[in-house]
Amino acid sequence: MNTFEKIGKYDFVTEQYLLDFRGRVTIPMIGNYLMHAASNHASKRGFGFSDMTEKNVAWVLSRLAIEINRYPTMSEPVSLFTWIDEVGRLFTCRCFELVDSSGASVAYARSIWAAIDLQTRRPAPLDVAALSVYIADRPCPIEKPGKIAAIETEAEGVPYQVKYSDLDINGHFNSVKYMEHFLDLFELDLFREKEVKRFEIAYLSEGRYGMALTQHKKETAPDKHTMAICHEGKAICRATAEWI
Amino acid sequence: MNTFEKIGKYDFVTEQYLLDFRGRVTIPMIGNYLMHAASNHASKRGFGFSDMTEKNVAWVLSRLAIEINRYPTMSEPVSLFTWIDEVGRLFTCRCFELVDSSGASVAYARSIWAAIDLQTRRPAPLDVAALSVYIADRPCPIEKPGKIAAIETEAEGVPYQVKYSDLDINGHFNSVKYMEHFLDLFELDLFREKEVKRFEIAYLSEGRYGMALTQHKKETAPDKHTMAICHEGKAICRATAEWI
Repeated sequence: MNTFEKIGKYDFVTEQYLLDFRGRVTIPMIGNYLMHAASNHASKRGFGFSDMTEKNVAWVLSRLAIEINRYPTMSEPVSLFTWIDEVGRLFTCRCFELVDSSGASVAYARSIWAAIDLQTRRPAPLDVAALSVYIADRPCPIEKPGKIAAIETEAEGVPYQVKYSDLDINGHFNSVKYMEHFLDLFELDLFREKEVKRFEIAYLSEGRYGMALTQHKKETAPDKHTMAICHEGKAICRATAEWI
Repeated sequence: MNTFEKIGKYDFVTEQYLLDFRGRVTIPMIGNYLMHAASNHASKRGFGFSDMTEKNVAWVLSRLAIEINRYPTMSEPVSLFTWIDEVGRLFTCRCFELVDSSGASVAYARSIWAAIDLQTRRPAPLDVAALSVYIADRPCPIEKPGKIAAIETEAEGVPYQVKYSDLDINGHFNSVKYMEHFLDLFELDLFREKEVKRFEIAYLSEGRYGMALTQHKKETAPDKHTMAICHEGKAICRATAEWI
């Protein structure tokens, strides 16, 4: 198989009505572009949402890291490349590169996905042989998403109740909605003065409707915040934001 | 000018990762499709966001009504038609029809837009002659959005604080985000049993960052709810939802 068939390319024009107050693309917008590319790339190669459902399994995003060199602005054409980097028995790593119309990299992302059995909600083994034929050798020069330290015992929680708009097609807290909630923990002044350079998120367990949650945030290093969303004191999602 | 040049057509494939827990398109998703079509249709005809900014004015959505016959489901190709129906000195009416791949109407919408001066934030007169050449004669068989009754004195308010993700490029509460917040006032069970047949929204004044808001909801007729978002007891946005 040639590289062309392994790497997917998806074109977008940044939507003016979705930009933030600074006129820039937001991290959740990038998150939706990644979901679009991942889901189309997988479907076209026979391992998309519907293919998985037929086998009684579903993809779940486990970890994601995004590094942004430059935030695209209004009505900017951008292209997102995506490819598979690694396939293991239980996890697969998918990479992304977002480029602008001059061909310059504006962002990279690395994501780690698992499959779960739709009945038991337990991890399901991946078809390593079938997925591995799509592994592409393309550089993604950012660190992998890793373990995120617990901060919930040190930072007071803001109560939050899961709502209709938070839920995805599986009835669980939508991956991109978590990003939105984490960013909303910051004061607007911080977005005026700084940029998120790296955003990392780890999905630990499923958020469900009506769950009483708490949102926690702590500055764990200069210009670095660690966050958590917890249910009954146990984190269901963690994230970090590094500002410059 | 022929009808073809007056009416815009925009194609979408419903994004699986944005569907609700029932696997259906949401009203905010339709709202974003409408914004996409409106903004591209206007830009292509010389009265888009950038054209307006050059004249020191901006479009503001004043009222919107959406009626849905059938909610599109997963990865469904849909086409959205948009055209100008009426142009007045201060308001213009834009219509929409969403059709599925068989050509059947799945939804109609009517929107009323005004222009505001970017400095004074006061209504600015429209270029009636320039806009009127685009008026198209195409049926949009739903009632216009109208005045929505005040319910905030009769229904207790839930406190809400405007956040980073709520803001649009003008630094005001995003039109589509209001829809999301209104729908989130309903219990999930209602979405399991019923559908929103008609959703109507009226934007009264600008929501800004850090504003302390209250959200109100009251059943004003069988299967009809009226809602309001208020600041210091005064509504900044009202909506109705009719269920079947």
